[in-house]
Amino acid sequence: MEKAQAKLELQPEGEQDPEAEAAARALLTDLYQFTMAVAYWRAGRAREPAEFELFFRRCPFGSSFALAAGLRDCMRFLRTFRLRPADIKYLASVLPPDTDPEFFEYLQGLDCSGVTIRAQPEGSLAFAHVPLLCVSGPLLLVQILETPLLCLINYASLVATNAARLRLIAGPEKRLLEMGLRRAQGPDGGLTASTYSYLGGFDSSSNVLAGQLRGVPVAGTLAHSFVTSFSGSEQPHAPMLAPASGQGLPRDLSTLAKSWLGKVCECLGLRAEETHPGERAAFVAYALAFPKAFQGLLDSYSVMRSGLPNFLAVALALAELGYRAVGVRLDSGDLLQQAWEIRSIFRKCASRFQVPWLEAVSIAVSNNIDEKVLTRLARKLVSVRGQPCRKLTEDSEKQTLPGTKAAFRLYDPEGAPILDLLQLEEEPAPRAGQELRVWPLDVSGGDCRSLTLTPASLEPLLRVYFHLGQVCEPIPSLAESRTLAQKSLGCLSPSHKRLEHPEPYQVALSEKLHALLKGLVQSNQEGP
Amino acid sequence: MEKAQAKLELQPEGEQDPEAEAAARALLTDLYQFTMAVAYWRAGRAREPAEFELFFRRCPFGSSFALAAGLRDCMRFLRTFRLRPADIKYLASVLPPDTDPEFFEYLQGLDCSGVTIRAQPEGSLAFAHVPLLCVSGPLLLVQILETPLLCLINYASLVATNAARLRLIAGPEKRLLEMGLRRAQGPDGGLTASTYSYLGGFDSSSNVLAGQLRGVPVAGTLAHSFVTSFSGSEQPHAPMLAPASGQGLPRDLSTLAKSWLGKVCECLGLRAEETHPGERAAFVAYALAFPKAFQGLLDSYSVMRSGLPNFLAVALALAELGYRAVGVRLDSGDLLQQAWEIRSIFRKCASRFQVPWLEAVSIAVSNNIDEKVLTRLARKLVSVRGQPCRKLTEDSEKQTLPGTKAAFRLYDPEGAPILDLLQLEEEPAPRAGQELRVWPLDVSGGDCRSLTLTPASLEPLLRVYFHLGQVCEPIPSLAESRTLAQKSLGCLSPSHKRLEHPEPYQVALSEKLHALLKGLVQSNQEGP
Repeated sequence: MEKAQAKLELQPEGEQDPEAEAAARALLTDLYQFTMAVAYWRAGRAREPAEFELFFRRCPFGSSFALAAGLRDCMRFLRTFRLRPADIKYLASVLPPDTDPEFFEYLQGLDCSGVTIRAQPEGSLAFAHVPLLCVSGPLLLVQILETPLLCLINYASLVATNAARLRLIAGPEKRLLEMGLRRAQGPDGGLTASTYSYLGGFDSSSNVLAGQLRGVPVAGTLAHSFVTSFSGSEQPHAPMLAPASGQGLPRDLSTLAKSWLGKVCECLGLRAEETHPGERAAFVAYALAFPKAFQGLLDSYSVMRSGLPNFLAVALALAELGYRAVGVRLDSGDLLQQAWEIRSIFRKCASRFQVPWLEAVSIAVSNNIDEKVLTRLARKLVSVRGQPCRKLTEDSEKQTLPGTKAAFRLYDPEGAPILDLLQLEEEPAPRAGQELRVWPLDVSGGDCRSLTLTPASLEPLLRVYFHLGQVCEPIPSLAESRTLAQKSLGCLSPSHKRLEHPEPYQVALSEKLHALLKGLVQSNQEGP
Repeated sequence: MEKAQAKLELQPEGEQDPEAEAAARALLTDLYQFTMAVAYWRAGRAREPAEFELFFRRCPFGSSFALAAGLRDCMRFLRTFRLRPADIKYLASVLPPDTDPEFFEYLQGLDCSGVTIRAQPEGSLAFAHVPLLCVSGPLLLVQILETPLLCLINYASLVATNAARLRLIAGPEKRLLEMGLRRAQGPDGGLTASTYSYLGGFDSSSNVLAGQLRGVPVAGTLAHSFVTSFSGSEQPHAPMLAPASGQGLPRDLSTLAKSWLGKVCECLGLRAEETHPGERAAFVAYALAFPKAFQGLLDSYSVMRSGLPNFLAVALALAELGYRAVGVRLDSGDLLQQAWEIRSIFRKCASRFQVPWLEAVSIAVSNNIDEKVLTRLARKLVSVRGQPCRKLTEDSEKQTLPGTKAAFRLYDPEGAPILDLLQLEEEPAPRAGQELRVWPLDVSGGDCRSLTLTPASLEPLLRVYFHLGQVCEPIPSLAESRTLAQKSLGCLSPSHKRLEHPEPYQVALSEKLHALLKGLVQSNQEGP
């Protein structure tokens, strides 16, 4: 069962936001940001204009691309950022006792009214060295904001990128369900992972809270504990089920399933006594609760000798009453081999018992599905439940290219991105159809040649989302960002989308930025 | 700078708990727990007594041990667990429309008044297969609680175990600072990691929120961005510093540092012109803000030709005014080699300038310090900043040993644990000095021999922390749990503490539990 929910839009200032209180903890930062703040303040530099950029030095997971994500959480954090008296009191207790009391007075008035955020849209393709987010504002404040914004953008973008890679492997049609909550880094780690797995391309999550708070479609049926909690010796409780049509008398589903079990075992050459009666009782109980959404989890005992015939018995009993089972799930063993065998048995039974839809019911698989396993599975299966990998990878906050920058994506006539161009913000924007000389970014620092090209079209990458304390461009809904991600990925050339050894996507500098960087490198080499 | 804070105690029912609202989200669970709940309810089994156990099938990171952690978060979750009308409305929107409305009425009355939690104390040693936590209560509710309790215990225990391993490598004296917030799985992932790194043996965290909310000691000084934000051409702002004694006239620290730079460079055979003036300006600014807690971050430019002489210049200027610098930090390059060289230069300058304390100031290192790097560093350095690894490892919730169990740790006459004994709860407890026959747990399922032993002393491992909806044993403070962890680890034999290929710690079953298990295995093999 699965149902998309209304999306949680960013709410206007003042309205109730269930997450605002938790998100708005201004002390979510490293202590060294505050010790540096004291020193900036002491040096008379607190209000000096400053900017920092968040970008990937290398895209995660060996990708040529990343997905930009986490902007909504940043907006929520910034809008409500304030140091409450209790926060300042706590800070005073951990900073040296001789810290100037005027510093703490200064903190009392601190808010984001002087802060501006430029960022790539949520869900867009982000390449190495191109900023995902630029924060500008007073030096002291921007320094304090560095840690929370990194924390909010970094993990969200990693999870979204990982999900996008799994979606590329699975192809557009397969259903991908994330169910990693129990292994997540705490409740909020799980909430974030479920949210951004969806943004990156998963269809749904098992995490109910992600559904309630973030509008992620939720899905799920049953686990082994349910199956093994039935022994089969219980008296079936209220086993009567009315036909789907509403016409005709209710039948005892338990008895009906037992009679179908004999026919199924005969057809498949199995022994009915080898099937587990508790497993069948569990399937009957689940089918009674959800006759229109019955799914069998097959591997609590033996998939082929018990789980499968029990599923078929209940599914055919349901069919007799006019209901269609949803399918089965496998959670252990050789998933692909078993899925093949099960599909052929479904075909056989569909034909033998004249229930055509049985041939095509879904076979879902789960159990530590990573990119490698998914690659093997992807061509054969209808539906896959995976847990996106949560590898944390280095994301660097160090600014290597000088100056406040603008960024543009240049497209060829077919609409495929050619390269991303970084330039100084004050330079005139490039124009479609106009020849342009650019300098491909050479990370190794060596000298490289300029490139001349004429983009068929282009778009600016960084938009102002937050200006002087106000959200000035609404963040699209999560589902809209998810669509943008898939659309952008769709335009990217296959050579960049390749998951292993992808061709690096080119990022280039304008003439002016290139000259500025060259000058800096030389002056550094010559010493101060 | 570092200061332990008052610990956040679990607050009595009704008092304000800043985290309660965020933690008490009853929908923090997998949807399949609710679909199963519908089916249990439909089958008349909602109130049937049930129990599940949380344990590690294999201890994480290849350890022979884990640390039990996360209990406090579980208590917080359970105490406030309630499905609010909005939660139930949301559930109704994602479950099939024909779900019996009486099910949702049943959910309205659901709370933890029928739930009992037995658990190993926070911070205690937990071995594979011995439950960290046992939850008993009505089947439907216990099923819903499975995911959030796993989520809360699993990650906390992983982080604590990882921290304990790093502490074993570093030895008891070295200072370990966790600073992983910016790479964490979102804000709460970071909060949890900082909290349980401390419990597992770290000294402090850079995460200010973990200090404020959880009482973790916080520490931190400055980052590269601070150093590089000074060019050196700025006019020093308010550079006058009064002597530490309060006696005598303030001096211009900037000028003083410059004059010391000449002497330092002469002593070390360096050229003062090669040092970066911006770096020195940053050090002076930081020293003016924190004259009693000055630390130099050495690797923004060149450690040996700029960072170190600049640090020494400022440290010696401070010394002239009666202040002692805290030390230096290295964040790149060959940390060990550099630390050696720096220590020898400190000795040389301490002697040359007659500032004895300079010889022994701390050399802190950071930058992706994992177990391997730490092993190399541990013998040489005073203080290490690391980021505990956040590997998620399989934690299984599947119950393989039947029945409600009691667990005891048996000790030899020297107070070292010999083995953990699992038995049925109804069996009489073993006694110190009394001979006992036990069956070592054979995970492979093969037959193994019984063992006879006489424990010198023993202790029960599982205590009742929550009974019928009430917290019935206070959770010790975080710092107390941290002490318990180190004390328990101290008693464990070195062969089990070895980080690579440790000798597995033995877990054994009582005669009765062993017989019960054997019977079950046989009946499974014979089929139902």
